[in-house]
Amino acid sequence: MVLYVIGLGLGDENDITLRGLNAVKKCQKVFLENYTSILGIDHAKLSEFYGREVVLADRDCVEMGADQILDGAKDGDVAFLVVGDPLCATTHTDLIIRARELEIPVEVVHNASVMGAAASCGLQLYSFGQTVSIPFFTEEWRPDSFYDKIMYNRKGGMHTLCLLDIKVKEPDFEAMARGRIVYLPPRFMTVNQALEQLIEVEERRQEGAYSKDTMCVGMARLGQKDQTIIAGTMDELRTADFGGPLHCLVIAGDVHLMEEEMLKQFSLNKQ
Amino acid sequence: MVLYVIGLGLGDENDITLRGLNAVKKCQKVFLENYTSILGIDHAKLSEFYGREVVLADRDCVEMGADQILDGAKDGDVAFLVVGDPLCATTHTDLIIRARELEIPVEVVHNASVMGAAASCGLQLYSFGQTVSIPFFTEEWRPDSFYDKIMYNRKGGMHTLCLLDIKVKEPDFEAMARGRIVYLPPRFMTVNQALEQLIEVEERRQEGAYSKDTMCVGMARLGQKDQTIIAGTMDELRTADFGGPLHCLVIAGDVHLMEEEMLKQFSLNKQ
Repeated sequence: MVLYVIGLGLGDENDITLRGLNAVKKCQKVFLENYTSILGIDHAKLSEFYGREVVLADRDCVEMGADQILDGAKDGDVAFLVVGDPLCATTHTDLIIRARELEIPVEVVHNASVMGAAASCGLQLYSFGQTVSIPFFTEEWRPDSFYDKIMYNRKGGMHTLCLLDIKVKEPDFEAMARGRIVYLPPRFMTVNQALEQLIEVEERRQEGAYSKDTMCVGMARLGQKDQTIIAGTMDELRTADFGGPLHCLVIAGDVHLMEEEMLKQFSLNKQ
Repeated sequence: MVLYVIGLGLGDENDITLRGLNAVKKCQKVFLENYTSILGIDHAKLSEFYGREVVLADRDCVEMGADQILDGAKDGDVAFLVVGDPLCATTHTDLIIRARELEIPVEVVHNASVMGAAASCGLQLYSFGQTVSIPFFTEEWRPDSFYDKIMYNRKGGMHTLCLLDIKVKEPDFEAMARGRIVYLPPRFMTVNQALEQLIEVEERRQEGAYSKDTMCVGMARLGQKDQTIIAGTMDELRTADFGGPLHCLVIAGDVHLMEEEMLKQFSLNKQ
């Protein structure tokens, strides 16, 4: 009779809280949202760890078919698992509002999210401005609304966390045209790809929101055993190797003395 | 031989992650930082829960006497527990830098922090600007550097998270003048006190960073069973009762449609 919306943190099955694990164990049905982020492990590992089936919930299921999830909550408790913290992205707000409309009690179990763990880069979380999303550019669609936000942040001395696009369960239109339902393999934007797009937009706009010499920190697999953090200019990080997903990027604003001290340990260029 | 810096999350002993708990259980010495935040439970409860003594580390101990903590890490593992996430405040950066200088390996275990859980108020975390701290005003000391930051955030449409002052282990100067070392009882700023100070500064500066009609959300004991969230104008929240500590406050920037929908459930004024 309760919908638990549970953050899993960032790494693997061990990053759930005791409160979260206790809740999962009470639930008849367990869903894992798998289109806005990923853990460092396979979801089968989670099923094994919890001793119950974990059903993958893709975007269609959550946004259009929330009923499938909420139906279960009428008879018994349902867990909806989210990588990171459940409230840090707005994706899950709809599900929570729907549940409340149906008078299903909702309990949120918080956890670490990329928006907090980004502090691992050594830049102060207090000094981060608004967060931007960098979408994969296509031939025809190269939106740059993030540019004004980065500019405003930097003019105010603030750092900008850039969340990088994830494409999961993208329809393969070619195959679909031939009458088959086929999905493309998942794609995760790399720090390198994000930087190429950012530099392209600066070259087009030329308003000086940032330049190739702007200090940035690229991060990959935050909170996981093999997390990688590299600091350098946009130009330097363009070719740095961050390994597998997920990646994110921070564009520095004004860097204070202690932040500089912390950044040094991640610097490509040690001078 | 490892210093574990472990986030405890926001509520009680059940908000630690499995990874965090496993680390604590391996440690010979366990410290709890107790001057930047508090859990909803007594620290004796933690000792009992972990089955080992939890030593309280106050500001002096962490900032000046880090050696006491790091000495232990030469012989065996040491856990340094932090309410929330260890990296969200800069307080612990020094300890980590010191440990690295001594070549003691450091492992950070992330957890939920107020900076993520603030999304519980229904305002999008993406749209938060820089965070400000509101210190207790005294007769002679009424600093207002937060004012410019709030102004800049709001001009850019961003929300502002205000962290409210905590005074722990304040010296009682009167008693000290009489040669006794006495500390005052801990003080935690309420949402009401913060609003009084904010309004005072606006009246003095008159630059329109905000007004008595500005939409705000006051939050108390985030992530705890009895968390309280109330939305209303500054004027309305001035007299709202939020109960015990910790409190924090969000000053809204531009409020979008879905945010309005979420805020409604917390509104003092339902129209």
